Amino acid sequence: MDLQIKGIIPPMLTPLDSMADIDEKGVRNLVSHLLSGGVHGLFILGTSGEAPGLSYGLRKEFISLTCELVNKRAPVLVGITDTSFEGSLEIANHAKEAGADAVVVAPPYYMPITQKEMQAYLENLSRELPLPFLLYNIPSHTKLHLAIETVKKAKELGALGIKDSSGDMLYLYSILDEFKDSPNFSIITGTELFMPELIMNGGHGAIAGGANIFPGLFVDLYNAAKQKDFEKVAVLRQSVMKLYKTIYNVGNSPAKIIIGTKCALSVLGICNDYMAPPLTRFSASERKKIEMYLGEIKELL
Amino acid sequence: MDLQIKGIIPPMLTPLDSMADIDEKGVRNLVSHLLSGGVHGLFILGTSGEAPGLSYGLRKEFISLTCELVNKRAPVLVGITDTSFEGSLEIANHAKEAGADAVVVAPPYYMPITQKEMQAYLENLSRELPLPFLLYNIPSHTKLHLAIETVKKAKELGALGIKDSSGDMLYLYSILDEFKDSPNFSIITGTELFMPELIMNGGHGAIAGGANIFPGLFVDLYNAAKQKDFEKVAVLRQSVMKLYKTIYNVGNSPAKIIIGTKCALSVLGICNDYMAPPLTRFSASERKKIEMYLGEIKELL
Amino acid sequence: MDLQIKGIIPPMLTPLDSMADIDEKGVRNLVSHLLSGGVHGLFILGTSGEAPGLSYGLRKEFISLTCELVNKRAPVLVGITDTSFEGSLEIANHAKEAGADAVVVAPPYYMPITQKEMQAYLENLSRELPLPFLLYNIPSHTKLHLAIETVKKAKELGALGIKDSSGDMLYLYSILDEFKDSPNFSIITGTELFMPELIMNGGHGAIAGGANIFPGLFVDLYNAAKQKDFEKVAVLRQSVMKLYKTIYNVGNSPAKIIIGTKCALSVLGICNDYMAPPLTRFSASERKKIEMYLGEIKELL
Amino acid sequence: MDLQIKGIIPPMLTPLDSMADIDEKGVRNLVSHLLSGGVHGLFILGTSGEAPGLSYGLRKEFISLTCELVNKRAPVLVGITDTSFEGSLEIANHAKEAGADAVVVAPPYYMPITQKEMQAYLENLSRELPLPFLLYNIPSHTKLHLAIETVKKAKELGALGIKDSSGDMLYLYSILDEFKDSPNFSIITGTELFMPELIMNGGHGAIAGGANIFPGLFVDLYNAAKQKDFEKVAVLRQSVMKLYKTIYNVGNSPAKIIIGTKCALSVLGICNDYMAPPLTRFSASERKKIEMYLGEIKELL
Repeated sequence: MDLQIKGIIPPMLTPLDSMADIDEKGVRNLVSHLLSGGVHGLFILGTSGEAPGLSYGLRKEFISLTCELVNKRAPVLVGITDTSFEGSLEIANHAKEAGADAVVVAPPYYMPITQKEMQAYLENLSRELPLPFLLYNIPSHTKLHLAIETVKKAKELGALGIKDSSGDMLYLYSILDEFKDSPNFSIITGTELFMPELIMNGGHGAIAGGANIFPGLFVDLYNAAKQKDFEKVAVLRQSVMKLYKTIYNVGNSPAKIIIGTKCALSVLGICNDYMAPPLTRFSASERKKIEMYLGEIKELL
Repeated sequence: MDLQIKGIIPPMLTPLDSMADIDEKGVRNLVSHLLSGGVHGLFILGTSGEAPGLSYGLRKEFISLTCELVNKRAPVLVGITDTSFEGSLEIANHAKEAGADAVVVAPPYYMPITQKEMQAYLENLSRELPLPFLLYNIPSHTKLHLAIETVKKAKELGALGIKDSSGDMLYLYSILDEFKDSPNFSIITGTELFMPELIMNGGHGAIAGGANIFPGLFVDLYNAAKQKDFEKVAVLRQSVMKLYKTIYNVGNSPAKIIIGTKCALSVLGICNDYMAPPLTRFSASERKKIEMYLGEIKELL
Repeated sequence: MDLQIKGIIPPMLTPLDSMADIDEKGVRNLVSHLLSGGVHGLFILGTSGEAPGLSYGLRKEFISLTCELVNKRAPVLVGITDTSFEGSLEIANHAKEAGADAVVVAPPYYMPITQKEMQAYLENLSRELPLPFLLYNIPSHTKLHLAIETVKKAKELGALGIKDSSGDMLYLYSILDEFKDSPNFSIITGTELFMPELIMNGGHGAIAGGANIFPGLFVDLYNAAKQKDFEKVAVLRQSVMKLYKTIYNVGNSPAKIIIGTKCALSVLGICNDYMAPPLTRFSASERKKIEMYLGEIKELL
Repeated sequence: MDLQIKGIIPPMLTPLDSMADIDEKGVRNLVSHLLSGGVHGLFILGTSGEAPGLSYGLRKEFISLTCELVNKRAPVLVGITDTSFEGSLEIANHAKEAGADAVVVAPPYYMPITQKEMQAYLENLSRELPLPFLLYNIPSHTKLHLAIETVKKAKELGALGIKDSSGDMLYLYSILDEFKDSPNFSIITGTELFMPELIMNGGHGAIAGGANIFPGLFVDLYNAAKQKDFEKVAVLRQSVMKLYKTIYNVGNSPAKIIIGTKCALSVLGICNDYMAPPLTRFSASERKKIEMYLGEIKELL
């Protein structure tokens, strides 16, 4: 297995017409938008993909459709995190059949658990997985900030790397330091603003939500960071900062980044802005703001 | 619909032989143990029932089996909380068919959400539920401490009452005060030590995990509280306090109360102590402690 | 030393004309109001007394004045918590000279520390204290929730008891259980709504902020709880609940309970409503609310 | 006033022989060690300086001694944060008289307060300060994460800049973005690992605890970052990372970074390792570790 996770991998949104219906045209548009933007892979059914809010049936349908549309032009990673061990495996097996390249695993998120319990869980799960896996740290949603020991255990069990969405830069530096002699173990940030530093310090890429809207911006930023072109990084980062201050900052839902991103894709004519429960789409006035912000950012680019 | 939730309602554990197999003999024993202990109802597939860790198939099988065994001798409440709206409905519909009496609803627990989002969620869900529902507040697991406004909204939508497992006694007093003129709206604590005060101040009952082991103790405590027999309450409460200090306090898992309770049931010969992932059963030395503690508590009773 | 801390001990507010000037007439009025209300002691320079916001000079002046006015009619407890060990001792020595009866000690509150560090601190401090001490648990302000082990250590070092303002009823029950064979070790709640249960379960009293305004109400509630007159407790508790919902709930400062209480004393003509920095007195419209609420509560009494 | 805060400014430790006695020889050695290491200024009586644990008398003595020893060779900043407004002013006035250049202000740290309360506090305090001030954000100790609005207010009131010790890199990026058109408003990190990125993105310096031990390392790192010499930054940062993993990581006190740093200075023969209460110096075995780690880091340099 010589898949290495790196570059810009958007956590692809899940276009929906209702909680039971995929917006197929939207998926088609979005896949095309992302691949033509030059991204290095897709991560579907993560937090931004609203996976836990979707039925297993819908998740499987979405996996099949996406893999078919991507048609091996880029690696597809599939989030399988679920509170049920068997549920996770069911999704993983479907991903394998559909032609996905890897799965992404975070702690089962209902029960608060210990690092030891998580390590045992990974040991049991990894044994049955039909595809290689990327570990996923997102304590705001799973209640567990994965200790370095747990990441090391995952690596021993064959993990391809870790995606960190803790927002904790000290942690990210510790991870970089810990695995500096294992360049094939991918260190991926889920906090897009941290990407340039991560790349310049030996990390591998970003699962950057904003790349759903502006894939090219993030690919350019990644390349500038790879080339240590600091001036260009500084300029491009301003656009990312602008995203944080505008599109990511409408309304007061803790999920406003995801809702704002889907609304932006809808404004761009790419897909429907329907959100799976418990989230709800933006109001007309909130959508107006997104429209305005999109215009402002496009001028920067 | 004149079901009123009250009294001692154990959050029944889910006896398992493996993650895919129900321990049927264990279920039979446990139902019999609880009903002969005089409990006023059963709450299955809650947090103590490890519901999120079980596949939908297993959950349904367990609902059917329990309803059949209970055979209308006591109300059966079924936890349907799930991150997927459709998943919740699927379980609810199965519960209706199996003959359950009500469902229990907590916030979908992956995405942190606002009170407004939760209210909209309840509005949409309640419209489709085939059975009446009890609202369930457990912020340690769902990340949302239900505001009084949200509880009032649930009541408007027909909720039978609220189970509060926040451990926040000031909140419980606020709830009691808010609904003091609605005696049919059940106020149930999930913190068993708070039960006597709750009952003496107009509350209705407890979903008390310890009643899995000692149903009679909790029923006696409930009756003593109903009769305002303060001396008896004081004596019986000592046994509950002892549970906290012993059986609930082995190991260091955040789920140690549930694991300890299942281990105790296993020591008593009632059911298997298998835990669904990500939890794991106690080690031999931890089990020894549970054995010893059970002996000590039995002497108190 | 046979002082036992019990009953209703208001955490007396500090009447001020400015950050440098005590409102002497206000102090006189307030001491008189409290003692004629039948309280069992006074606790000055606690959190409600805004002690950390006052200069040492002002604190000493206030101690002297209060002790003189009380003139041994009730025990006076003096808060000495400070981030500086020498500062704490300085206040304690002044309290001794002024005729106070005991001091109150919480963790020094700038540095987050461990239980072990707190135990060592208590060991060193208690050795030099000129008066007996009450331990004070208020993790919201000191960042340390005192473990049972730390409370036991304090008791070994001679502590008269513990005041708990954590709001954590499970903790309070654990404390009651732990010290049930030491009836002289006073267990005092700083959460006034918990007082009846505390008293009925073997506890000793309350440092109840609301007793600044309505000392008689709290003394009556204490007596009803002592006599296990449950009906009377239920009636009186409604007035306390009303305080929480009204006077304690104006504005959005985390210190709104203290600001509201001082405003109420000002409305009653007892003292000035000046708050030491960083707090600020209520606006005219907030004060109007306090006036209205005071009227409503007086009707209940 | 044209002081600009920038470069490496160690938060100088306070060498003590006891809680009442300054280790004067240690202060002399430490000032000399830091200045000869090339630092751009000194920040005394901050968190690392254990200021809140020291009496006012000792703080004043330390200010006078340090200012005298520095003798205008570098700017001296003095922490004046205190829970008492008058206490803060007293220290500030002494700092002015002793010849210090600026003061450092964090929220008064006992009462949790709102942003509005903090803004009013700054407005009142700044009016009376005899020296310019640097704002200081350290929510772990003060309970208040200063909002951008509060930082803007401080700037309007004349603040020289902000020191951020939140460890929150997203916040730091927001601050950089907010003040990008005010290059004289100094943005200083208290998280030393973040310094290179901060400098390369327009920030001004670091109040870096590790510069107490290795001033030259941090000055070199600062210069490399200023010159955008990324290779050199990467090499030097490894030594800083090593500090985190070793000297900052002994024992389990939340203050272990400060205790470890003082122990290291003691091992180096610079000053006594006495800690003001509630902290305590390392045990012999912990000191052994510090000795070993110092050796390892020196080899890297």
